[in-house]
Amino acid sequence: MAEPIEFYFDFSSPYGYLLSEKIDEVAARHGRKVKWRPILLGVVFKATGSAPLTLQYPAKAEYSVRDFERSARFLGVPYRHPSKFPLATQAAARAFYWIHGQNHRLSRDFVHAAFRALFVESRDISSLDTVLDIAAEMGLDRAQVAAGIQSQEIKDRLKTEVDGAIAKGVFGAPYVIIDGEPFFGADRLPQIERWLETGGF
Amino acid sequence: MAEPIEFYFDFSSPYGYLLSEKIDEVAARHGRKVKWRPILLGVVFKATGSAPLTLQYPAKAEYSVRDFERSARFLGVPYRHPSKFPLATQAAARAFYWIHGQNHRLSRDFVHAAFRALFVESRDISSLDTVLDIAAEMGLDRAQVAAGIQSQEIKDRLKTEVDGAIAKGVFGAPYVIIDGEPFFGADRLPQIERWLETGGF
Repeated sequence: MAEPIEFYFDFSSPYGYLLSEKIDEVAARHGRKVKWRPILLGVVFKATGSAPLTLQYPAKAEYSVRDFERSARFLGVPYRHPSKFPLATQAAARAFYWIHGQNHRLSRDFVHAAFRALFVESRDISSLDTVLDIAAEMGLDRAQVAAGIQSQEIKDRLKTEVDGAIAKGVFGAPYVIIDGEPFFGADRLPQIERWLETGGF
Repeated sequence: MAEPIEFYFDFSSPYGYLLSEKIDEVAARHGRKVKWRPILLGVVFKATGSAPLTLQYPAKAEYSVRDFERSARFLGVPYRHPSKFPLATQAAARAFYWIHGQNHRLSRDFVHAAFRALFVESRDISSLDTVLDIAAEMGLDRAQVAAGIQSQEIKDRLKTEVDGAIAKGVFGAPYVIIDGEPFFGADRLPQIERWLETGGF
């Protein structure tokens, strides 16, 4: 089987959410799996000297929200811009890595559940309680997930993943790597599809 | 006839070049004209606090050049990354506005000629001499174009266009406006096409 598609994202990235809703199906069509890798864009932005789109120059911030919503309609993905945005995603990312250690398939389901909680239902996933609610709604044990999120092992794991992503050249999100070829942004989806179809162009 | 498509660009923008090679045909298919508007990204970036992609964080700069080349292959547009890049585009932009005052159709031909000179032939279009060469190759009178570029009227015209673009919310390039709807980046081409087909989505 071919190598999995590496998918770096932050749970607060609207374009990350949009691409997350498309990548499973695209990967499956080409016999690939998706290796989900939540990271913390705040840490990446410190390294790169960048900032969230909606905290940039006013005209760019305004355009960005318009583009999140229009791009969602274009892709046929439900989207409601969150009332709290941007927001911290440590709890969600740590929950992912803990769940991943238990069950890979559940960790993928958690990615979709957490993204939709934020970008469809406008729930505040920066709150540990909300993250635990989402896990509980998936049938996970709330106390176990809480202990996992707060463990040193999982804190270290997230740090290692973020540092590893930066070392690999990840400077924003979503950032997809297919057989070593990097694709930045949800708008690279047509190139990703052609790359998978042709093995490179 | 429907309103023209406003196309803001800088002659040094690779994505501006890529979109310039596609927009005439897309516009024509929908009974639209293109209103070409060269601006100076250096001035825009001063207002927005941004910088050229290739002068940003090293991993982002490296990815950008790779993406210029891959996006060109994806779109079927010839591209060779210029040996001098980024570069100043005042002379090219002023030449455009002077030619535009003489003949609209020739000014469009000049856009394509100057872009291709930079992004296919790696010619240094920051040089006044090169810009005059390009105009002369189109059959224009070298001395007349030189006088036009250096006139106060044309210098003022370019300044007015750049200020007007910033006032309209333009924060980067290429930046396309269709009936008031803004689209930033060559990768918005599929959305531009759907917008023209459907009148909005």
